[in-house]
Amino acid sequence: MSKEITSRAADYSQWYNDIVIKADLAEHSAVRGCMVIKPNGYAIWEKMQAVLDKMFKDTGHSNAYFPLFIPKSFFSKEASHVEGFATECAVVTHYRLKNDGNGNIVVDETAKLEEELIVRPTSETIIWNTYKGWIQSYRDLPILINQWANVVRWEMRTRLFLRTAEFLWQEGHTAHATAQEAIEETERMLHIYADFAENWLAVPVIRGRKSPNERFAGALDTYCIEALMQDGKALQAGTSHFLGQNFAKAFDVKFTGKDGKLDYVWASSWGVSTRLMGALIMAHSDDSGLIIPPKLAPIQVVIVPIYKGEEDLAKITAYVNELTMRLKGFGVSVKYDDRDTQRPGFKFADYELKGVPVRIAIGGRDLENKTVEVARRDTKVKQTVPQEGLDIYIIKLLEDIQTSMFNKALAYRDEHITEANSYDEFKQLLDEKAGFISAHWDGTPETEQKIKEETKATIRCIPLDNKLEDGVCIYSGKASTQRVLFARAY
Amino acid sequence: MSKEITSRAADYSQWYNDIVIKADLAEHSAVRGCMVIKPNGYAIWEKMQAVLDKMFKDTGHSNAYFPLFIPKSFFSKEASHVEGFATECAVVTHYRLKNDGNGNIVVDETAKLEEELIVRPTSETIIWNTYKGWIQSYRDLPILINQWANVVRWEMRTRLFLRTAEFLWQEGHTAHATAQEAIEETERMLHIYADFAENWLAVPVIRGRKSPNERFAGALDTYCIEALMQDGKALQAGTSHFLGQNFAKAFDVKFTGKDGKLDYVWASSWGVSTRLMGALIMAHSDDSGLIIPPKLAPIQVVIVPIYKGEEDLAKITAYVNELTMRLKGFGVSVKYDDRDTQRPGFKFADYELKGVPVRIAIGGRDLENKTVEVARRDTKVKQTVPQEGLDIYIIKLLEDIQTSMFNKALAYRDEHITEANSYDEFKQLLDEKAGFISAHWDGTPETEQKIKEETKATIRCIPLDNKLEDGVCIYSGKASTQRVLFARAY
Repeated sequence: MSKEITSRAADYSQWYNDIVIKADLAEHSAVRGCMVIKPNGYAIWEKMQAVLDKMFKDTGHSNAYFPLFIPKSFFSKEASHVEGFATECAVVTHYRLKNDGNGNIVVDETAKLEEELIVRPTSETIIWNTYKGWIQSYRDLPILINQWANVVRWEMRTRLFLRTAEFLWQEGHTAHATAQEAIEETERMLHIYADFAENWLAVPVIRGRKSPNERFAGALDTYCIEALMQDGKALQAGTSHFLGQNFAKAFDVKFTGKDGKLDYVWASSWGVSTRLMGALIMAHSDDSGLIIPPKLAPIQVVIVPIYKGEEDLAKITAYVNELTMRLKGFGVSVKYDDRDTQRPGFKFADYELKGVPVRIAIGGRDLENKTVEVARRDTKVKQTVPQEGLDIYIIKLLEDIQTSMFNKALAYRDEHITEANSYDEFKQLLDEKAGFISAHWDGTPETEQKIKEETKATIRCIPLDNKLEDGVCIYSGKASTQRVLFARAY
Repeated sequence: MSKEITSRAADYSQWYNDIVIKADLAEHSAVRGCMVIKPNGYAIWEKMQAVLDKMFKDTGHSNAYFPLFIPKSFFSKEASHVEGFATECAVVTHYRLKNDGNGNIVVDETAKLEEELIVRPTSETIIWNTYKGWIQSYRDLPILINQWANVVRWEMRTRLFLRTAEFLWQEGHTAHATAQEAIEETERMLHIYADFAENWLAVPVIRGRKSPNERFAGALDTYCIEALMQDGKALQAGTSHFLGQNFAKAFDVKFTGKDGKLDYVWASSWGVSTRLMGALIMAHSDDSGLIIPPKLAPIQVVIVPIYKGEEDLAKITAYVNELTMRLKGFGVSVKYDDRDTQRPGFKFADYELKGVPVRIAIGGRDLENKTVEVARRDTKVKQTVPQEGLDIYIIKLLEDIQTSMFNKALAYRDEHITEANSYDEFKQLLDEKAGFISAHWDGTPETEQKIKEETKATIRCIPLDNKLEDGVCIYSGKASTQRVLFARAY
């Protein structure tokens, strides 16, 4: 297979696919819309999971596991929820196959379920049905639970990591005695997602609220973090929902308060998914391949020996072993690639393609000079570095790469937030510059829908730190009190 | 809810259910056969996952993720495989619901799948279909991949953790250039499972091979670890399969060897599941509740203050904080329960029920005497222990509990391996003593089947360390060269 990657300039979409496939991150499976996450991709996802899981636990959440299947009737209980998910769900109708006598395996029609089961697209309904049994009094609250799981949404157009029929995610589901507590939780988790995106993924995000059109089906308010990809399109990287008492009412979950009064329970839910892999790839990578932020890189440093004979290699290996031990002592993950079946040039290109943040090459002359060659993946800058103090140098370099990657993405993002004051300007910006367009909107779903139909741009969010500013809607000309961020999005 | 637990003597099965429910480990969901794993239960499963995952990675395996759904046609490709799983699988036939116009949510018959999808009961077929694209040459081998996933088998009789329609597990799927390598891998993973069972779960296991009747559907050889529960019934705690070239042939996966010749790839697969939770509970717990081996306990030490006033509590808390810091420094997980809403007696009973290995109680008099009260969960022995050196005392105590639990289970297990030399003796032992019965068997599936039908006992395994010994089959009287282990089993 050719390792050549289509350039971003030539075809951004193909560039993305090339990286996913050629860096061995994922591939399409034989099942429509479902992907295989390959070891290279899964290792990054595991690092993400570990970091997020710790963040959740540090804020008092526990993990649990709820059923994959949801009875169809549960779905119908929250009207807007079912409307949001019913048209794209996998339905289990039978529980047995049989041999038809001619050697064909067919569905056994005698094994039809009385009630169809839906493969969960999200778990609010099955979880709130469960919480009903767990909550009687304010003493049982709050419930702060997270689940790592697979979910299925029957998307018609799929793209690896970005939009797949089955994907992996975490979904938090919390229950509270007051609206205020539930809102605080919703916001707390949004900030955790933003912290993760910025400080681990190295992807700057805008924290905001969705317009009513873009809200989660069943939520009173949806908060989101929005990132910008290198082609100027936005990507929603995580959402946190204030569900009010909608699901408590749908599943009749009440509690007795301190005052002895019965009330419905307040809820939040929040999730991020393997879509974050798409954000990581598209925010940072270049025409040579993937670039992984050091804090999420399964291998942070790869060491390649350049040698002529066995004796040469033995000397290099002795030094590398000692260096590796020191680096591992600092928690750095190191791979020494001394395979004799591949040449150094091949290895260099391969680790570049796969995004390993730092490559160290060491040859006979380096040993004599007590130096090594250090190449950083993000800028491709190579330097000859003394062996003395190399461990500290590498640790600082990893930190520097992490920071540089974030700053580069931030600069790009900030350059791509542009104000538009007329619909013509808006459309021109969308086509010529893309990115986020900050514009006045009259606050109606109708206007939002019209703009979407005409330009494919949606309101990504109303930023949390928005300033109030009098203006007129770019589309309707009606009065507006604040700008919102539009963009074309993944 | 009453925290009273049915005694093992009164009703072992109810005792088990009581512990699962009352220690908040899991509960039945609204979906037939599917369970909700509650935070207390899931926290133990997470510890198991972490330990196993490290063992897999230390032996060269990587994690990946394959689709939840398997096209029906894949199933049919390996004849014995489909026969083994077809009668108990969830079948997805549609991908959309709709509103029927009368407010009812119904399956949209226009959204019928061309080919039905099976919710994976195990992933050999989808994985080997994928491996076909990954393997061309011996250089692509071995492939050593593990997946953490949910699977579904439509069991008609379910029991929490032991047998559920959906369960969580890991499944390893490896591909090799030679039969020998695949067999070595199969055996390596069996020994890893045994190591985990004995040194972490504190459950002694017998390593053996299954008789042909009990083999995995599609395997040439199934290895297993068999544990004994306190009621004398056996529990299969893990299996590792040598699949030969069956799946490679079914999915046409060939490779070019070093000699340039084409051959089918050799395979192994191996798995353990949330069933291990059942083993943990049934092997160790008592009539007061759960007993968790310290190495898998989410909370290893709980500290309960016994105080009269705020001043008392402040002094105790100051000491506890300092003790906690020292214990955490040694990697011990500690919980300080200073809730003022519950009395110490309630807390003691609750942590006993939930199986926390060590409880420390500390009151005003303890502070004066520079002592604490330490209670170990397994033996319920309480001791007054000096504060000086308490951290080291606790660490040794946790190790001692882990060892004692294993030794106790081992002694019980070893007392319950009994030889039977006639069918009458066999049946009497089964009814009166239970446990493993070591008996001669003529090696035929027919005899095994007859014994199963008449006694409900199955051949649990042919131990790996079996001695050859001439004898006659207890059932048929035919010649036999070795004893095998029978038992009634979960």
